Amino acid sequence: MSRSLENDRLIRALRRQPVDRTPVWVMRQAGRYLPEYRAVRAQAGDFLTLCKSPEMATEVTLQPLRRYPQLDAAIVFSDILTIPDAMGRGLYFAEGEGPKFRNPVRSRHDIREIRVPDPQRDLGYVLDAVAGVREKLGNTMPLLGFAGSPWTVATYMVEGGSSKTFSEIRGLLYREPQVLHELLELLTQATCLYLAAQAEAGADALMVFDTWGGTLTPAAYREFSLQYMQMIVTSLRAQTDKPVVLFTKGGGAWLEAMAATGATALGLDWTTDLSDARQRVGDRVALQGNLDPCVLYSTPKQIRAAVQQTLQSFGHGNGHVFNLGHGIHPGVDPANMKALLEAVHELSPAFHD
Amino acid sequence: MSRSLENDRLIRALRRQPVDRTPVWVMRQAGRYLPEYRAVRAQAGDFLTLCKSPEMATEVTLQPLRRYPQLDAAIVFSDILTIPDAMGRGLYFAEGEGPKFRNPVRSRHDIREIRVPDPQRDLGYVLDAVAGVREKLGNTMPLLGFAGSPWTVATYMVEGGSSKTFSEIRGLLYREPQVLHELLELLTQATCLYLAAQAEAGADALMVFDTWGGTLTPAAYREFSLQYMQMIVTSLRAQTDKPVVLFTKGGGAWLEAMAATGATALGLDWTTDLSDARQRVGDRVALQGNLDPCVLYSTPKQIRAAVQQTLQSFGHGNGHVFNLGHGIHPGVDPANMKALLEAVHELSPAFHD
Repeated sequence: MSRSLENDRLIRALRRQPVDRTPVWVMRQAGRYLPEYRAVRAQAGDFLTLCKSPEMATEVTLQPLRRYPQLDAAIVFSDILTIPDAMGRGLYFAEGEGPKFRNPVRSRHDIREIRVPDPQRDLGYVLDAVAGVREKLGNTMPLLGFAGSPWTVATYMVEGGSSKTFSEIRGLLYREPQVLHELLELLTQATCLYLAAQAEAGADALMVFDTWGGTLTPAAYREFSLQYMQMIVTSLRAQTDKPVVLFTKGGGAWLEAMAATGATALGLDWTTDLSDARQRVGDRVALQGNLDPCVLYSTPKQIRAAVQQTLQSFGHGNGHVFNLGHGIHPGVDPANMKALLEAVHELSPAFHD
Repeated sequence: MSRSLENDRLIRALRRQPVDRTPVWVMRQAGRYLPEYRAVRAQAGDFLTLCKSPEMATEVTLQPLRRYPQLDAAIVFSDILTIPDAMGRGLYFAEGEGPKFRNPVRSRHDIREIRVPDPQRDLGYVLDAVAGVREKLGNTMPLLGFAGSPWTVATYMVEGGSSKTFSEIRGLLYREPQVLHELLELLTQATCLYLAAQAEAGADALMVFDTWGGTLTPAAYREFSLQYMQMIVTSLRAQTDKPVVLFTKGGGAWLEAMAATGATALGLDWTTDLSDARQRVGDRVALQGNLDPCVLYSTPKQIRAAVQQTLQSFGHGNGHVFNLGHGIHPGVDPANMKALLEAVHELSPAFHD
């Protein structure tokens, strides 16, 4: 059973149970738009050093909660590339260029070198951060753990970093699908262990970020991304009743298939209407999202109107977690984040009994 | 009326009339994957110089037709940013970084400086290339003209170049929607004149590339992209009966609305199944697409199987133009393009009476 939380709105909404108002958290709520984050990041020197220090990761996880008492959840500060880093692929972050791998994976030979990381031994810093945040939070509110989807993590491993076209991995997919499947199987095993360990360490819900599933054809999405997320959901379901949230950016066309995995909730980006999504899958899963992050470049008044529209789009009743459709942008004024959160607090009770 | 063409398969398929086999052309068929293109490009020195030389643009337009007699259409070699260049925004191409504007558009003040280009006076080099290709082609096969959608062209003008997040323009959209509408109206006027002039100069069909419409919310797509493409279709419809093709990358969810514009055909990227799309809108428009360009990184045998799948996905009957779901990648082996075209020739007659 889940622990008893003082503020359990997020968990209740993920389970489509009644709440007094719509719970809200924001992807990348601990991040570069906050000056206090930038200060810790500067102190750490390197992004990866920050991720790997449980003390600093705990601190930046808690920063947005101090500034914004309106938040209904914490999400542990980490990165989706911790697993391939633990697989020895030589992850580093080039300033202004995003993640890079010294040892990209391009062949069966590369894959044979890979061992599935043991979470306690190889990713203990993440589990320590989860436990650290959990301790500081006490039972005040839920803490989310997360991982990247196997497909999404594989894109970085095969491309050797970020990509605009994903030519390397999509080339591999068509040329040597079995090689890619071997990599995805290893990542799936690693992700199941990793998320279960985060739950064990104190995470109350688990989220899988499939940032790049939307770059696939419908058939390839099912075979190379969704199939592996399905295995993760099934594996977690056997170990814990904690909610599991799947988020495929650009996956609006495939919500029915995502809901059929048995996930508790689906994250939605801003290109799908919440009303349509609810009609299609709202009797099976909760929905999390989906305000366009760029709304936060407008004014508090405009933000409030957009929050109202988002709430209205989902409509009255249970099963909505307010969030952006993607991570908050680094250039956003923290005052606008406050306007967003206040608007959810003020406007959402009208959508609940 | 359309001119009489020896090979009119493309035009017939766009009009959903019977053909003996599925016509095929490929987005960016004149491009960097061809060594003969790279030679002319090196001679030109600069990408924009190549675009602005009707002789060189004509030459590279014809190159893929010489190499691949299987192609059923030419598309004039040009760029979607010719209009903002003619608007004096200081377009240049930084090596390896894509297009940049010296004078990005960020305010109403910037927009007031903009004049709608006169196609004959300001974009005559494109019309000369259209006429040049038309003359060389004679009446052998159709020639496509094209433009970017107002929204897509505006993204480059406002961002000052390519973007991953489109924060500038989407910020402007939420903060000062009226300013953005002013820019989109100017671009729409310019695009109507420009496409009509290309038709006049000898283009047999016209295509609007909305590469970045898929980055918008459903409501913003209708208001900031589709609305303006609708104006373009309506304006062209009043002047010519030549087919008009709309292509919104990532717009698979909005095909019904796109078909309702009165466009002759819709382009599809690879994230939507042709079978689903045909079921949804195939009684109103032809469909063009949609093989994943990364299939061309596999082998001729695998390419052939993927071509068969694509043909099967559309199914038997009229209204399919074979194409990739996006431009051919620069790294593709020209022999694999040949395998694609041969497969369409050999396999597609079975799908026609």
